[in-house]
Amino acid sequence: MTYTLHSMQNSGNCYKPRLLMHQLGIPFRLIDTDSFDGSTRTPEYLALNPNGKVPLLVLPDGRRLAESNAMLLHLAEGTPYLPGDKYDRALCYQWLFFEQYSHEPYIAVARSWLRLMPGGRERMSAERLADLHARGYKALAVMEERLGEAPWFAGDGYSVADIALFAYTHVAGDGDFDLAPYPRIRDWLGRIAAVPGHVGMDWRP
Amino acid sequence: MTYTLHSMQNSGNCYKPRLLMHQLGIPFRLIDTDSFDGSTRTPEYLALNPNGKVPLLVLPDGRRLAESNAMLLHLAEGTPYLPGDKYDRALCYQWLFFEQYSHEPYIAVARSWLRLMPGGRERMSAERLADLHARGYKALAVMEERLGEAPWFAGDGYSVADIALFAYTHVAGDGDFDLAPYPRIRDWLGRIAAVPGHVGMDWRP
Repeated sequence: MTYTLHSMQNSGNCYKPRLLMHQLGIPFRLIDTDSFDGSTRTPEYLALNPNGKVPLLVLPDGRRLAESNAMLLHLAEGTPYLPGDKYDRALCYQWLFFEQYSHEPYIAVARSWLRLMPGGRERMSAERLADLHARGYKALAVMEERLGEAPWFAGDGYSVADIALFAYTHVAGDGDFDLAPYPRIRDWLGRIAAVPGHVGMDWRP
Repeated sequence: MTYTLHSMQNSGNCYKPRLLMHQLGIPFRLIDTDSFDGSTRTPEYLALNPNGKVPLLVLPDGRRLAESNAMLLHLAEGTPYLPGDKYDRALCYQWLFFEQYSHEPYIAVARSWLRLMPGGRERMSAERLADLHARGYKALAVMEERLGEAPWFAGDGYSVADIALFAYTHVAGDGDFDLAPYPRIRDWLGRIAAVPGHVGMDWRP
């Protein structure tokens, strides 16, 4: 038995565990599950994940785990991808929650409406998009400030905090965000792409 | 030196670390910081937390930690409030991210508009409130289903997953949510209130 990931290929949240499992050398099976065509709302899928979202990780023993950042913490425990220092690990937790509360709901959601959802760009109001942009740019400003203090988000090196924030930041342009005024973020995106074992969002096991 | 918590008394997110530190017997100093009167947007506060939110925990050595659920994980490491079993701990992570992504943005936000924000109830549109209620009730349904499998959210006993979900669930009525159709949630709220060292949201150190 090995790991199984229910995953939508162009979802940043699903990309996070794909990237980490590749870097950890963990073999896994991918089951494509499209959250736009109702596949995450079938009775069969809701029996696996009552919250009706991807990704969903099925462990080798059959037990299930939802929430992309929970997968990152679980898989990274005891590896260099989760800082061994207690405070650095706390910062790692901090940035994972920042990503899900202050970043993803704006940067990923703008991308989803403008690039992924059929007819989304037409249905998105100018007012709603302006709000997503204002809040998303605020998150990018917080990231830019952090990267003025240290090259990585938590501890001395690349960690799951960087993976979580990379997932939607590197495709922020899909939601009409302009990263030109964020030179530290652009440098950091380059550093991540140069980490051994890095693969892009289109990679499949 | 001891811990200092920048905290708004009626914020559920700020209540989480207050409750856990009380149960852990960790002394701390409280600095009242009102996110409605601009106190979290001053240059002095933004120098402490660039994301401009409460709570903010200052550790005894002066280093800072944001994000309520990151504080819970950090403070609970090595204690019975974070499960020792690897899978139970992963479930704990899962529910903490569920709380911040699928629960708090609806149940806490409805409460904030209807009960805390001056004039909020008048300015809230019926359409927006209906959306908050639909999504919040979906989160409650997911919780009710989990509580049909086990009395606690992660592992064999009360953990930080329960603390995080308790914070806004027990005051969901403030956002005009009705918990009557969720008997397992109501029983679980009672179990939490009976845990040794439990204190309510109005408790201060």
